[in-house]
Amino acid sequence: MRITTIQAARRAVSSSVAGPTSRRTFATVTRLQASYGFIGLGRMGYPMAKNLRTKIKKDDTMFIHDVNEQITKQFVDELSSVGPVTAAQDVREVAENSDTILTVLPEPHHVQNVFRNMLHPATLLTSAPNTTERLFIDCSTIDVRSSAEVANATFSSGQGKFIDAPMSGGVVGASAGKLTFMMGAADELVDRASEILSMMGKRVVHLGPQTSGLKGKLANNYLLALNNIATAEAMNMGVQWGLDPKALADMINTATGKCWPSEVNNPHPGVIEGAPASNGYDGGFGTALMLKDLKLAMQAAAEADILPRLGIHAKDIYAAVEGDPELKGKDFSVVYKYIGGKATDGKPKNVL
Amino acid sequence: MRITTIQAARRAVSSSVAGPTSRRTFATVTRLQASYGFIGLGRMGYPMAKNLRTKIKKDDTMFIHDVNEQITKQFVDELSSVGPVTAAQDVREVAENSDTILTVLPEPHHVQNVFRNMLHPATLLTSAPNTTERLFIDCSTIDVRSSAEVANATFSSGQGKFIDAPMSGGVVGASAGKLTFMMGAADELVDRASEILSMMGKRVVHLGPQTSGLKGKLANNYLLALNNIATAEAMNMGVQWGLDPKALADMINTATGKCWPSEVNNPHPGVIEGAPASNGYDGGFGTALMLKDLKLAMQAAAEADILPRLGIHAKDIYAAVEGDPELKGKDFSVVYKYIGGKATDGKPKNVL
Amino acid sequence: MRITTIQAARRAVSSSVAGPTSRRTFATVTRLQASYGFIGLGRMGYPMAKNLRTKIKKDDTMFIHDVNEQITKQFVDELSSVGPVTAAQDVREVAENSDTILTVLPEPHHVQNVFRNMLHPATLLTSAPNTTERLFIDCSTIDVRSSAEVANATFSSGQGKFIDAPMSGGVVGASAGKLTFMMGAADELVDRASEILSMMGKRVVHLGPQTSGLKGKLANNYLLALNNIATAEAMNMGVQWGLDPKALADMINTATGKCWPSEVNNPHPGVIEGAPASNGYDGGFGTALMLKDLKLAMQAAAEADILPRLGIHAKDIYAAVEGDPELKGKDFSVVYKYIGGKATDGKPKNVL
Amino acid sequence: MRITTIQAARRAVSSSVAGPTSRRTFATVTRLQASYGFIGLGRMGYPMAKNLRTKIKKDDTMFIHDVNEQITKQFVDELSSVGPVTAAQDVREVAENSDTILTVLPEPHHVQNVFRNMLHPATLLTSAPNTTERLFIDCSTIDVRSSAEVANATFSSGQGKFIDAPMSGGVVGASAGKLTFMMGAADELVDRASEILSMMGKRVVHLGPQTSGLKGKLANNYLLALNNIATAEAMNMGVQWGLDPKALADMINTATGKCWPSEVNNPHPGVIEGAPASNGYDGGFGTALMLKDLKLAMQAAAEADILPRLGIHAKDIYAAVEGDPELKGKDFSVVYKYIGGKATDGKPKNVL
Repeated sequence: MRITTIQAARRAVSSSVAGPTSRRTFATVTRLQASYGFIGLGRMGYPMAKNLRTKIKKDDTMFIHDVNEQITKQFVDELSSVGPVTAAQDVREVAENSDTILTVLPEPHHVQNVFRNMLHPATLLTSAPNTTERLFIDCSTIDVRSSAEVANATFSSGQGKFIDAPMSGGVVGASAGKLTFMMGAADELVDRASEILSMMGKRVVHLGPQTSGLKGKLANNYLLALNNIATAEAMNMGVQWGLDPKALADMINTATGKCWPSEVNNPHPGVIEGAPASNGYDGGFGTALMLKDLKLAMQAAAEADILPRLGIHAKDIYAAVEGDPELKGKDFSVVYKYIGGKATDGKPKNVL
Repeated sequence: MRITTIQAARRAVSSSVAGPTSRRTFATVTRLQASYGFIGLGRMGYPMAKNLRTKIKKDDTMFIHDVNEQITKQFVDELSSVGPVTAAQDVREVAENSDTILTVLPEPHHVQNVFRNMLHPATLLTSAPNTTERLFIDCSTIDVRSSAEVANATFSSGQGKFIDAPMSGGVVGASAGKLTFMMGAADELVDRASEILSMMGKRVVHLGPQTSGLKGKLANNYLLALNNIATAEAMNMGVQWGLDPKALADMINTATGKCWPSEVNNPHPGVIEGAPASNGYDGGFGTALMLKDLKLAMQAAAEADILPRLGIHAKDIYAAVEGDPELKGKDFSVVYKYIGGKATDGKPKNVL
Repeated sequence: MRITTIQAARRAVSSSVAGPTSRRTFATVTRLQASYGFIGLGRMGYPMAKNLRTKIKKDDTMFIHDVNEQITKQFVDELSSVGPVTAAQDVREVAENSDTILTVLPEPHHVQNVFRNMLHPATLLTSAPNTTERLFIDCSTIDVRSSAEVANATFSSGQGKFIDAPMSGGVVGASAGKLTFMMGAADELVDRASEILSMMGKRVVHLGPQTSGLKGKLANNYLLALNNIATAEAMNMGVQWGLDPKALADMINTATGKCWPSEVNNPHPGVIEGAPASNGYDGGFGTALMLKDLKLAMQAAAEADILPRLGIHAKDIYAAVEGDPELKGKDFSVVYKYIGGKATDGKPKNVL
Repeated sequence: MRITTIQAARRAVSSSVAGPTSRRTFATVTRLQASYGFIGLGRMGYPMAKNLRTKIKKDDTMFIHDVNEQITKQFVDELSSVGPVTAAQDVREVAENSDTILTVLPEPHHVQNVFRNMLHPATLLTSAPNTTERLFIDCSTIDVRSSAEVANATFSSGQGKFIDAPMSGGVVGASAGKLTFMMGAADELVDRASEILSMMGKRVVHLGPQTSGLKGKLANNYLLALNNIATAEAMNMGVQWGLDPKALADMINTATGKCWPSEVNNPHPGVIEGAPASNGYDGGFGTALMLKDLKLAMQAAAEADILPRLGIHAKDIYAAVEGDPELKGKDFSVVYKYIGGKATDGKPKNVL
């Protein structure tokens, strides 16, 4: 694995790293002018594209597209003072005018349609404006199989390279330019892609060849899905037994139970200031998204003849949470309420 | 919660505590000579007692007892050069001669018997040699209800105070004096108990009134039991999908899936040097102990009318692991093998 | 156990039965005129009360009550030609005028309120019109603990006897007078209660002392809840493997997989004519009711320190089903659709 | 589906079948002399072969083989008075001399080896002695994919037809000639195969084309695996709540919870006379076999991208049962003891 941090990218020293897990910096490629394409300006895509336009060189070009014309107009209005931004008529125009095209789309069929429209007209794309190779970076979280199919179609068209780079960090991370990207890419594409992604995130992790980014994200989020329910259950037990929620969380976080949901996103209101649980479970990582990722992980597991155990139950739990009108649409830590968890006043009790 | 570190104890400045979760130091009590009792010199108890004898003042006394006379003899032989150690005839003799008595026993009925024998003869214990109050510190991990009963019997006998202080850290932590103690104690006992426990550990966490130590440990270990299986499942998926195990673990450990089993006790051989998985799953935290703690947590949950979800399944998984002759007796991360996980050579594959 | 059928009741020969599970007939008590009360004329209660009024002797009296005055008016209009029916002002008036009072109410608090109002005014109820003992028969499905509390309050008031007699059979069974009653009653009350319940059902099963009826119903429905999901899973596997659904169901129903959901309520559309699955999953036993019973069973299990295994998962599955807008409100066999089951055309396929 | 009973076979009237699920009789084929092969004389195979030799015509021939020569010798000694029986040198000799060859083997690799040795020598098998087509009937319970591969190899060799016909009924059913066969066969083979199988069983169910027999058995046994645990849980709840076990079972068996494990194989000792639970859980269907079938079902489910829910947990429960030295090797209803179930004296209690 290689983890590229923005700091590393800025130092921009030449790299020469052996192992798959080393951290290294990389060489910047000297270039005259770069051209970027960005397709999908949704809740994640818009702030990502904004950070990209802000960080690239002033005279680099950027072509954008979204099904919502209001959004592309807004983006042009907001960012054109920073540098050239063109709202393209269609995705084909984006591809035609860009060395590097980023896609941030919700579902497999969106990704498939966009690539079909970019790559399969009667005529080939003209060569990329400034590089010998066009690079497609798909940041969407979709199923591994669909991504592999799109990648294969791209490679076999001879019109570009493809890498998958789903991210984590949510809308907050996207706005702050602090996303983590999990990248599946051929080794020779890693430097170029890392430099670009670093403009939108704080960390780029190279996990192996194409599809590895998605696989890594799904494995991580499978784990997260379970740790989250486990934390909710442990916190619920502790406070119903009479423990002070903050004392319990503090202890766990110095002990073997420590995990992201206990430490950063604790499901008991008030334990972590600023966590969704302390704000009515608003914001954060929606249960529907957790459920989507969990389903993708299970699908990929089934295709590899793996029978998930706890994940099967977790899927039904999140489906039940999302089906409860009072809990729907909240941060996935709201599973704490689903299992009967209550906010306590923190006064020690002694119930057993 | 209050977390006391050895450093804090040694600084020994007077305390001024703000809330239940503050970290503070505490005042040492000036005293002439202290007397300690230690009952239960098993795999955990022996190294703990050894550390205690080494850290207390040279002329402090120590009375010990174990059902195995060989062990008490060995202890006297090994430690009497450090300071006074007496192998008592029975637990009553230990109690009679000690201000502070530590018990480290395997099962509820051992704890119950020892306390019955110490407290319920026809005559009361004489007053503790050097303090006005005898203090019983039970470091056993037993069920909350039994502990509460023993505590109540102790308090109502008028012959001493009782706190529960189960620990984590295993035999390695016990030998190195680096255990973590989770303490359930009345506020006025915290300083005195913390000072003593700090001689055997690196951290003492006060979680609330008596029984809170056990409750905290059970909540933490419930969480650990689940995070461990979740990590095994996520690692298994990732490597069966073709990811490099170390690259996957490194990524998870910078992301939201990070937890103790992924970072410290990773179940894939070779990912963490020195982890049980890298040593044939030997050493570490045995599945039988994990199962014991999980059962205790479930029992306490049921008594509070809580229906654990993932924990129910986890219990059956650990029981199946422990029932497999090839996996029995190993570190609990061996659940990775139970679910079909294999050691991979780390060469990236692309299976989907 | 004693199972009383209507036929047995009508034969009305005197009984003398030894074992707990024998079927026996029983003696009818010769009486002049009987007085009945009926509280709760909902979807179940109305047709039950109607059957009762039709089957009792013409000059027996009947006092009714429901929170909905429209319903009591409708009942009087519809049934007063059959025999005396009085819409009481309140439940106290019902109790005052009846030897036997039946209650069919949705939730524990309804049952608690009705009994409080019947039994706890300043003055005692007058003695029952025609018998020496007033008998309260609660046919509501509520939690065991609440039922026991109401029963104890009734007995200790000295104003009547109490039995629990929840039923199964649904609205269809209630209308047809073919319910099954599961009865918890002291032995000396069995004959009297069975005779009355037989007028509304085809089978009365005596399971033991008071609360045994509820316990039996909850154990049965816990089993049903699981068998239903298991059947949905097995049918889904079979047809996705290419089997003809009807051939599969027919085989199962001659083999060890046979159960009520496979034989009577098969979840695959078209397998059982008239089953909810063959009618868009309409009618039948709603998922919300299954979920209610499952929760009651789990609650009673937890109170007996039993950790349900498959039931925990089943609860989350039914909650997810009921939370899906497309599946909500349907017969509980719709879980087949939730797990991905599809209606097949029955043409054999060969997919593996 | 077609269900053939022995009675039907003996009536031997010509058939006229309506649909896939009709029961019909079938025509017997007039023939001079038939030749049978039987491979695998284990606990199931031996009594099956014995019944076959007893039921076929006196001068029909039979060639047998087993890896255990003692067994084949014993079979010849025991049966040769009934009609011709030859212990073949190898499976090739069996095939060479038989129109119909039955195989009853434990694992996929056994089946694969036997068929490789029968079909793949340098020279083809001579034509079957008395029929134009050799018929292989595999009664082994193996995975669907392996069975399909063996079937395809058989068909493509041009040396015979293949059907799968796994059975249920256990050693008791095999001895009594009362097995049920689940048959996957092309329509034109159904009559011939049914007639033969009827000599060893009481029911032959045709579920569709080749592989359908195995698929049906796995779907049925998946359901059985769950119903069995569900019954154990429901019985455990009921009796721990204080119900009489026999009264509870009797009620369930007239209600919606009724299933094979509640009615025929009830896990509470004493409820069903002659059931394994009433005999120390000896005899019956071993947990290891249940676990084997459950794994095969899950494997086939995974290959069809189905995620089993309750089955995943059930698999871990049975693995835990089989890993418990006190429960190992017993009938699968012993899961009742695993979950904490106890034999009760049947005296009603009232614990809640």
